[in-house]
Amino acid sequence: MPEFLTLLPPDEARALLLSHLSAPKADSELISTDLSLGRVTAEDILAPHPLPEFPRSTVDGYAVRARDTFGASDSLPAYLNLIGEVPMGDAPAFQIQQSQCALIHTGGMLPDGADAVVMLEQTQIARSNEIEIMRAIAEGENVIRVGEDVVAGTVILPRGRKMRPAEIGGLMALGITSVRVVTKIRVGLISSGDEIVNPSQRPRRGQVRDVNAYTLASLVTKSGGEAVMYGIVPDEKSALKETAARALRECDVAVITAGSSASTRDMTAEVIGSLGKPGVLVHGINTRPGKPTILGACDGKAVIGLPGNPVSALVNGYLFVAPVIEKLLGLPLDKPRPSVLARLTVNVSSQAGREDWIPVKLVNRKSEIGNWDAEPIFGKSNLIFTLAAADGLLRIAPDATGVSAGERVEVFLI
Amino acid sequence: MPEFLTLLPPDEARALLLSHLSAPKADSELISTDLSLGRVTAEDILAPHPLPEFPRSTVDGYAVRARDTFGASDSLPAYLNLIGEVPMGDAPAFQIQQSQCALIHTGGMLPDGADAVVMLEQTQIARSNEIEIMRAIAEGENVIRVGEDVVAGTVILPRGRKMRPAEIGGLMALGITSVRVVTKIRVGLISSGDEIVNPSQRPRRGQVRDVNAYTLASLVTKSGGEAVMYGIVPDEKSALKETAARALRECDVAVITAGSSASTRDMTAEVIGSLGKPGVLVHGINTRPGKPTILGACDGKAVIGLPGNPVSALVNGYLFVAPVIEKLLGLPLDKPRPSVLARLTVNVSSQAGREDWIPVKLVNRKSEIGNWDAEPIFGKSNLIFTLAAADGLLRIAPDATGVSAGERVEVFLI
Repeated sequence: MPEFLTLLPPDEARALLLSHLSAPKADSELISTDLSLGRVTAEDILAPHPLPEFPRSTVDGYAVRARDTFGASDSLPAYLNLIGEVPMGDAPAFQIQQSQCALIHTGGMLPDGADAVVMLEQTQIARSNEIEIMRAIAEGENVIRVGEDVVAGTVILPRGRKMRPAEIGGLMALGITSVRVVTKIRVGLISSGDEIVNPSQRPRRGQVRDVNAYTLASLVTKSGGEAVMYGIVPDEKSALKETAARALRECDVAVITAGSSASTRDMTAEVIGSLGKPGVLVHGINTRPGKPTILGACDGKAVIGLPGNPVSALVNGYLFVAPVIEKLLGLPLDKPRPSVLARLTVNVSSQAGREDWIPVKLVNRKSEIGNWDAEPIFGKSNLIFTLAAADGLLRIAPDATGVSAGERVEVFLI
Repeated sequence: MPEFLTLLPPDEARALLLSHLSAPKADSELISTDLSLGRVTAEDILAPHPLPEFPRSTVDGYAVRARDTFGASDSLPAYLNLIGEVPMGDAPAFQIQQSQCALIHTGGMLPDGADAVVMLEQTQIARSNEIEIMRAIAEGENVIRVGEDVVAGTVILPRGRKMRPAEIGGLMALGITSVRVVTKIRVGLISSGDEIVNPSQRPRRGQVRDVNAYTLASLVTKSGGEAVMYGIVPDEKSALKETAARALRECDVAVITAGSSASTRDMTAEVIGSLGKPGVLVHGINTRPGKPTILGACDGKAVIGLPGNPVSALVNGYLFVAPVIEKLLGLPLDKPRPSVLARLTVNVSSQAGREDWIPVKLVNRKSEIGNWDAEPIFGKSNLIFTLAAADGLLRIAPDATGVSAGERVEVFLI
């Protein structure tokens, strides 16, 4: 098997693949901000005005001129004339002059002349229209300044930002009710193999249902892509080539899952080689599962050949397909991956030089948040239910020969 | 402010709220398995047949009777007659008798009579139709047994399981192309406040745009719910009561975000108290941000009153709204939360007895995966862009008075 003579480590293989992509994708679309969850900004977004646009109180209290409270204390309060109440949702019709104050509620607009708010708890009503201030406060105290959240004209969201609840809220606060996002990355999925049938079909003896197209489609959806299904093609070079070429024309990425036999792998590599330049970049990766993974770049587009074993295909989908989608979306590549810190329950050994990804189940040790046991689920890479039973994957680095029971490990959630 | 005399810790407050819910929600729907990503199973799902249904080879090699390889080695190979090749996707038309073998590819069906597969690399072609086997192998070696992935009749996915790529693939492998899931949890969102206007509107001075309805709607969507928008109601008890009652009739959960002034909070509490029994469970929580949060249960449904400050509302949405949705979906409550282990860059102090949630930005320390600095973003809880700039939240436990620079902390991704 000459293709395995020089196995690249996964990180190097991924970096090589990503370096060949024309990214980020240029196509964008304008969508409603409230429907943009999970989408990625296609351009820098600037603040059209400051936020807040007027100074606001952060407490219930009295709007004052700070200097009028100078020296005030419990034993020697300052006495201020109450001239009114700030209405919620309106600009006050008055302004604060020397020795005056006005009742103000949390979120209310500071009247002109006032520069601070004394909390209700630090005051007393002396008599009608006169307030005792029992504490000296500084200018700006209990106030949000104009532009304290956002200064007009600044970049509030850079290009390549994934929209989460906070980003959506931030745009709404500025009245930005539509947002330009990168169009979803189209990933064409091809299943190859004479033994593979559609899941709705009853397999004959010797046949199995297609699993990989569906696990990968879900992964693509989760990663911000749109899966385009090209169905099942027989183990035949011309059929595979034709379908792969069409997928590559119509999509941004093509993924072929093929059997794990040597001849199938060779055929996938040949097909990838024929689709564009430079063709196959990596044939075989120093990882388990997933050694037979093939990475290619054809005229600026990624083509990935994954092993047919469901666990290999999905794990290597996480390692290679998801990052390709993220790069094409313009997402930063050095963002943290969701993980959980856990304590490994048993020794796990690994071959030095090879990166291992082991499905693990997280078990709450003490019925307390944050105390997790990581129990490895061992099983052949054909067994999809080993992954369905797992909460995440444990990585054993290439330079390690294993991890010992009791060690704290990071488990990447899947 | 009598309501703050007995502030509950957030964990206790949440447990109290969850204990009052009729959960999980009984309504379910049958949907296509390939569209079920993120949905939650409404019933146990059983395997209709074993997986695999026939013994399969995990390697390229020769199907043999293990006992025929007994004693075989490089220097003393066993010689077996090659009687054919197993076709992919079909049952072999022959069976393996004593001293016979057949060529088989990865994933191929083991012929009757064979009980193991010798890897190609451990064989040589002696002459036409005769194969040298250079290693003794055990029964079952390089074979997946019938039912090794799944035994017929076993529960493959329990009720309350969130569908991920692996679960979807597992169902497809068994031909289960539709799945019964819990209907989405309907969460009615009401914004209250005389100063609040719709984001598409240009606010007058003193007015601000509604942010909370949109951050919470996104959070609800992310958590497996469906947000139902009830718009903005004025600070007036009858109007708020009418809208909240309608939301509670039409939805599984109602969330009211109101101003943070004492009078507004009291009004929200009164309204929740009038909607059903037992009414307000918790009025004030020992956390920052979010002290004014109100939790209620009205005739088996959760009603949550959140502070109007955008950061408070969203952080407490994560603490209380998301868990309510998860419980109603039937998800296990002790599942790990996605987090990232990081090193805190500065000292952060906190008041003993109070739980703090601090927005932090994660910065890659050494351009290497897994080395993260957590930089706190300090800001008033009115500033939504402090959350938009954050990657996650750092929890400071009630019994701590702070966390020191350099400590390793878990940052919960938002």
